[in-house]
Amino acid sequence: MADSVQQYLKENESRLLEQLDAFLAIESISTDSSKKEEMEKAVTFLTDYLNDIGFDRVERHETGGHPLVYAEYMQAEGAPTALFYGHYDVQPADPYELWESAPFSPEVRNGRIYARGASDDKGQVFMHLAVFEAMMKTNGRLPVNVKIIIEGEEEIGSEHLNGYLEQNKDMLQADFSVISDSGMVESGTPTILYGLKGFTGLEVTVHGPSRDLHSGLYGGAVKNPAMALAQLLATMKNEEEEITIDGFHDNIETLTEAERKLMNEAPGENYPVSTGVPETAPEKGYTAKEHTMARPTLEVNGLFGGYQGDGTKTIIPSKATAKLTSRLVPGQDPVHVQNALVHHIETHAPAGVTVDIKREPLSARAYKVDPDHPLLQKAAASYAEAFGREAVFVRMGGSIPVVETIDQLFQVPVVLLGFGTPEDNLHSPNESFPVEHFRLGMDVLAHFYTEAGEK
Amino acid sequence: MADSVQQYLKENESRLLEQLDAFLAIESISTDSSKKEEMEKAVTFLTDYLNDIGFDRVERHETGGHPLVYAEYMQAEGAPTALFYGHYDVQPADPYELWESAPFSPEVRNGRIYARGASDDKGQVFMHLAVFEAMMKTNGRLPVNVKIIIEGEEEIGSEHLNGYLEQNKDMLQADFSVISDSGMVESGTPTILYGLKGFTGLEVTVHGPSRDLHSGLYGGAVKNPAMALAQLLATMKNEEEEITIDGFHDNIETLTEAERKLMNEAPGENYPVSTGVPETAPEKGYTAKEHTMARPTLEVNGLFGGYQGDGTKTIIPSKATAKLTSRLVPGQDPVHVQNALVHHIETHAPAGVTVDIKREPLSARAYKVDPDHPLLQKAAASYAEAFGREAVFVRMGGSIPVVETIDQLFQVPVVLLGFGTPEDNLHSPNESFPVEHFRLGMDVLAHFYTEAGEK
Repeated sequence: MADSVQQYLKENESRLLEQLDAFLAIESISTDSSKKEEMEKAVTFLTDYLNDIGFDRVERHETGGHPLVYAEYMQAEGAPTALFYGHYDVQPADPYELWESAPFSPEVRNGRIYARGASDDKGQVFMHLAVFEAMMKTNGRLPVNVKIIIEGEEEIGSEHLNGYLEQNKDMLQADFSVISDSGMVESGTPTILYGLKGFTGLEVTVHGPSRDLHSGLYGGAVKNPAMALAQLLATMKNEEEEITIDGFHDNIETLTEAERKLMNEAPGENYPVSTGVPETAPEKGYTAKEHTMARPTLEVNGLFGGYQGDGTKTIIPSKATAKLTSRLVPGQDPVHVQNALVHHIETHAPAGVTVDIKREPLSARAYKVDPDHPLLQKAAASYAEAFGREAVFVRMGGSIPVVETIDQLFQVPVVLLGFGTPEDNLHSPNESFPVEHFRLGMDVLAHFYTEAGEK
Repeated sequence: MADSVQQYLKENESRLLEQLDAFLAIESISTDSSKKEEMEKAVTFLTDYLNDIGFDRVERHETGGHPLVYAEYMQAEGAPTALFYGHYDVQPADPYELWESAPFSPEVRNGRIYARGASDDKGQVFMHLAVFEAMMKTNGRLPVNVKIIIEGEEEIGSEHLNGYLEQNKDMLQADFSVISDSGMVESGTPTILYGLKGFTGLEVTVHGPSRDLHSGLYGGAVKNPAMALAQLLATMKNEEEEITIDGFHDNIETLTEAERKLMNEAPGENYPVSTGVPETAPEKGYTAKEHTMARPTLEVNGLFGGYQGDGTKTIIPSKATAKLTSRLVPGQDPVHVQNALVHHIETHAPAGVTVDIKREPLSARAYKVDPDHPLLQKAAASYAEAFGREAVFVRMGGSIPVVETIDQLFQVPVVLLGFGTPEDNLHSPNESFPVEHFRLGMDVLAHFYTEAGEK
């Protein structure tokens, strides 16, 4: 089946690229309230295309914010059902003057399509639709049942998505989920992303005197809140980057040697070169790759108190604040970890000060699917077939909230089929996407959906 | 001799207060370039008055900034020479709307003279001149030789004072120095301030990655500079407020039991009430009074790095900075202490980051005169005589740079005869000075200068 589909895609490539250009030309900037008509144009583009392809049901759904496109094809009797998620909204394009070609006038240069959204996420969404078109045109059917949701608020925090998913849980139930909103570790290297980290956080403010005090008159009598904060933070991690908070690691997964091998074999960044640090600083007993992919972190995202201007101001500041976030791995419960942080702070605050804690309301569990899961193995085989190279299996230190939501709500594996590259300039001027990845990526998808339809 | 002088001061009190009002009415705000004429008026007021009193030599000296008033009386043959320092400039008075009476229209209410400069320092300078007048009018002579410098740049950092003192070292040489630019521990309690702290400082910036990094993608690979800074600061002081920096305490004075007794007997602040802290936090083995007066301090004056806005930004900041200052006690060399801090930072910086240190160029040694020095005992007796209460002996955690300069340059004791009170609102709206302290303070001065003239 895949061969004829690939043939179709090859023969129709220039027409499909033109169609993609038309999609990319729509200025669907979700954060810009003056672009509501453009958002509607994108919705119309998608619903028209999905109708043309031959989906059974194609609908524009209200969410309370920007509309969401829903479509379904349920005629693959006996085959599993895929829930495809994507987003049609894009980041703003300013500063426009830094673009070599206009962000909404797609242009191919040096083998890349330059346009806002080429990689994130309109380009990757379009690839799925083009493959569905090719399958319908060549075989008259899709190898799996497909439910599609394409939202318009991803770049502004997906405010209405969770509510929509919960309200339409039965309608959206599927056997697995597919998302193409990520990338490969490097151009040309197939990458199976099988895990993401969870997230929790809080802000702690150490309060001392009710006003900034003269450091001469009060130094020695009054505990300095900035020093107290430093001392408090220093109790949370030792010099070997081990997090020293009771309960933080409760129920944490054990990293297997097999997984460590996968991670360390994956191509990685040369951190000193890419970030300018003198050396990496992973947790004792783990490599930087292992720590970023599979060990929890605790980071000070911001720190402030007292005088920040030029020169000297001899005060004891009245307070000092640190913003902290943790990235979590499978097994860790975000609320339990946040409670452990709060408890640690409350029990380790130095004498002479008081602490005030603001809990970060957003949180997420880590997501992980077994890299040996048949669907991931099928995905890996599909990549290898198209790219001519074995796929690497990686986890990512970041979080993609929708993945965790789908995982929790539908209890199904999420297959992350990313085709982006580190050079795509997501959210920046001159966003682009390699034409070759458009081509090979569609081959991967054709192969994958076909394989997924087979028992 | 003192009795007739006191009699004169009493009989002339209302005229002297009118004269003080005229001095306080001059808007001698040194930082305000539109007030140059007012600065000249203050100079003229002082030179006219000093000439009227009968000083031998009364001069307006150029400094490169605001002029300085110099005067001398050298006819007390065989008697020691006093170098009196004061300043005629004042702080700005804004916000004017917070003053109950206009800042440059002196008004007596509830036993206090309300005006900018009433306490700091025109009021206290005038008291010395009035006593000199009384002595000349009643006895035709002063009991000591007197050299007077009254500068116009104290409130803007005394930029030209050190140069002036050095250039005129021979002219200004004296046997002791007298300054009335400080206060008493509480209204009505004679206070001998016999020590001030020195000062050094630096700013340390911990550098990590060359830009803020995504905390998910890089957390675990790259050392967090804000956490590194916290860990570094935490190595400088233990939980018992002991400074743990090699070399910091070198050559430090040992606090005698006699001094401890003096300090602990002095009236002091109820810190939790006055500052709102839950409890005091002095160094282990010392009381809050002992630590503020006589133990060195290390304070974080400011702390900053990364995100400071609302909510969460999941970054690893590229750098974090702390501003540190130390107050020093006798024996400590500011440069040696700064070197010790630098060495500590360089040897304790965590792996994975680099540190950049900016040394604070200003520094000062501590100042201390033996509380048993005959001049201080004479000062104490003079206070006790006038106020009817025994003087308390205290040291102060703050620094008065001119005291340390005079000490270093002339190698003479500096007698700090302060008459201000904690309620004077220095540098704030509604500055005031108690009329009773004007009256009693002049008695103290009459008594002190007389005693100082006697061998």
